[in-house]
Amino acid sequence: MTTFRVNSTRIWDTLHESCQWGATPDGGMNRVTLNDDDKRVREWFILEGKKLGCQIKIDQMGTIFLIRAGEDNSIAPIAIGSHLDTQPSGGRYDGIVGVHTGLEILRTFHENNYVTYAPICVVNWTNEEGARFPKTMVSSGVWSGQISLEDAYNVEDINNPGLFFGKELEKIGYKGEVPASYKDNPLSAHFEVHIEQGTRLETAGLDIGIVSGVKGIRWFEIEIFGTEGHTGTTPMEGRKDALAASSEMILCVEETAKKHGGLGTVGVIHPLPQSPNTIPGYSKFSVDCRHDSNADLVRYTEELLENLEAISRKRQVKYTIKETWHFKQLEFDSDCKAAIQESAEENGLTFTSLYSGIGHDSCYTATRVPTAMIFIPCKNGISHSPKEYSSPKAVADGAQAMLGAVIRYDQRLRELGK
Amino acid sequence: MTTFRVNSTRIWDTLHESCQWGATPDGGMNRVTLNDDDKRVREWFILEGKKLGCQIKIDQMGTIFLIRAGEDNSIAPIAIGSHLDTQPSGGRYDGIVGVHTGLEILRTFHENNYVTYAPICVVNWTNEEGARFPKTMVSSGVWSGQISLEDAYNVEDINNPGLFFGKELEKIGYKGEVPASYKDNPLSAHFEVHIEQGTRLETAGLDIGIVSGVKGIRWFEIEIFGTEGHTGTTPMEGRKDALAASSEMILCVEETAKKHGGLGTVGVIHPLPQSPNTIPGYSKFSVDCRHDSNADLVRYTEELLENLEAISRKRQVKYTIKETWHFKQLEFDSDCKAAIQESAEENGLTFTSLYSGIGHDSCYTATRVPTAMIFIPCKNGISHSPKEYSSPKAVADGAQAMLGAVIRYDQRLRELGK
Repeated sequence: MTTFRVNSTRIWDTLHESCQWGATPDGGMNRVTLNDDDKRVREWFILEGKKLGCQIKIDQMGTIFLIRAGEDNSIAPIAIGSHLDTQPSGGRYDGIVGVHTGLEILRTFHENNYVTYAPICVVNWTNEEGARFPKTMVSSGVWSGQISLEDAYNVEDINNPGLFFGKELEKIGYKGEVPASYKDNPLSAHFEVHIEQGTRLETAGLDIGIVSGVKGIRWFEIEIFGTEGHTGTTPMEGRKDALAASSEMILCVEETAKKHGGLGTVGVIHPLPQSPNTIPGYSKFSVDCRHDSNADLVRYTEELLENLEAISRKRQVKYTIKETWHFKQLEFDSDCKAAIQESAEENGLTFTSLYSGIGHDSCYTATRVPTAMIFIPCKNGISHSPKEYSSPKAVADGAQAMLGAVIRYDQRLRELGK
Repeated sequence: MTTFRVNSTRIWDTLHESCQWGATPDGGMNRVTLNDDDKRVREWFILEGKKLGCQIKIDQMGTIFLIRAGEDNSIAPIAIGSHLDTQPSGGRYDGIVGVHTGLEILRTFHENNYVTYAPICVVNWTNEEGARFPKTMVSSGVWSGQISLEDAYNVEDINNPGLFFGKELEKIGYKGEVPASYKDNPLSAHFEVHIEQGTRLETAGLDIGIVSGVKGIRWFEIEIFGTEGHTGTTPMEGRKDALAASSEMILCVEETAKKHGGLGTVGVIHPLPQSPNTIPGYSKFSVDCRHDSNADLVRYTEELLENLEAISRKRQVKYTIKETWHFKQLEFDSDCKAAIQESAEENGLTFTSLYSGIGHDSCYTATRVPTAMIFIPCKNGISHSPKEYSSPKAVADGAQAMLGAVIRYDQRLRELGK
């Protein structure tokens, strides 16, 4: 049914062209949300949309929508979205591939003068990573009504207290007028191509993964209040060392995750005062917990919090915990998944179904509109690292499968419209 | 034997008068080396010396010697020294009490027209803290020939790269002509009063501590090289989490220190990339190890390093270790300590002997001339903080004990001279 193909050279070349903004010497990327390179790539992205005659929308969260008109523009657009922001030492594929897939599909329609029934739009969701402003997928979260605009604007820069998301968004000139809302800026569906960030496809030697749904995730922020003292005069007994307490808790996160067959990681820690001859009196760290099933996630994290509480009691340090995020495991839309599967079969691509261990913007859009995702293989499953890599073939296969899926879904809307 | 007493009101008042330079609103001090307030208090210090008819010497490190003539000025002076510089958020007693004790003793001699046998000098050693120019006790280190003048001049401002100690010393006009050397600017002995920066005296309710010597200290800088990965897709098995490895090592420092009866602390840690959903691939942390005896310190640290090595092997992370400082434990001079003890007994002051867990200028002078120290109680052992406090009685007791000790030591030189 798909009568044309994506241009595998073009998507590869433009992807790497756009990575000039944020490129690091090790071949990776540092394009954390709202930094100068994020601003530059946004300008590039909008220019690419204009070349294709797209209407440009920027919403209150700085999310950019490039909209290519269809036959009936009273219908909400079918979106192909992901994100252009990266981790501080991230790679060139996580998120970036998904946005470039959307661009490549628009270019393919454009050069073939193909007019879809519904408008098609490519979305660059702001701050999917949450690396600098620790609220991941915050823009799709606001769009879907799960996070308030105010809460989003008040997220603080994790390494620069006093810098807030809203103000920084304004500073780079991307606080738009369009309401960040599925009601006032609706979509008919949301499709996303993303690297697997795991090894299942690579190990099985498959071309793509059709994502069944997403694992459950809980994030916590923990603060430890101990007592500062001089390292040379304070006896070991009776110390209230906030970093030593944190260390015991970090090992406890690791052990409890293993015990429950989940994942548990401490990625950020900030002890104070950071002096070699002062016992740390304070420490703050993040905890990331995940599990395939939400019931198991709850069991695992409940036990973890009891264990951490016990450690703080044993070490006589004050302890506060804040749950900063709880994402409940979900299933994607069956029609969208069917469109992907038919496209994969038609294009002779091998595939399997699998769950995502990671939140994506599609997790939030799925709560409001039909949504599905395609995973493509990435080398050794490495991600959030300069070593992150997907081959030109993998990138092209994902785009080709998505092209067919979008055309199918558009046809379906046409039939429903008639 | 001591026929006169220090003036407890005068030492307290002049101490706080001199703290007008560098005073912070919270009652603490910020008089980091060579800042404007350090310059002003130096001018005040020299003026006080001139009032007492002292000869003023400024050496190549900016260390100031106020010398009051004795009967035989061919003999090297008996020094009472400490430092007027503070931490950026420091207190009014650490170092400052020691210099004011020296001034008060000269004033007491002066008003009683007491002529010592040897000249007596008060020393303000430059940059004991190493807070701005990170080389602690650097001037006594140069004086004693353990640090080269060139190395000292090349220490860089920790917060303002490009500003060097030598140039900044010149800028405030305190780069003197007198050689910074125990050979060319000798002393007969060095006495120092300092706050304990611990709680033993306060807890035991004693007036002073006679410092037996100084604990051995070893500092290490450890780097862990693991593998970054996504927290949501990387299985727990086979992770190379640099922060988890560091945490296990931090607990190992604590346990090994306890096992050997030493002190062990990790005060600084910098994992990367500091993102809540990225497994830390790198971590760097400081280790501070101390023990009363150098032999025990070596045994303890040797075992610690083996344990850390084993942890890095078990977790399959790369591990590098650098020893950044090794201060060998030392004993102070028995004659100097005896002079202090006799003075304490004569003055009806309660005392105990204890080791210092912290380096002081006396640690360097002790390598070249007879040296001893008196500790005075400080509230809750708090130091390097605006909360640092010693009572007027504690300050006066320390000065009175030192007055008697200096007179005794001077008598001893007279007897030897005869």
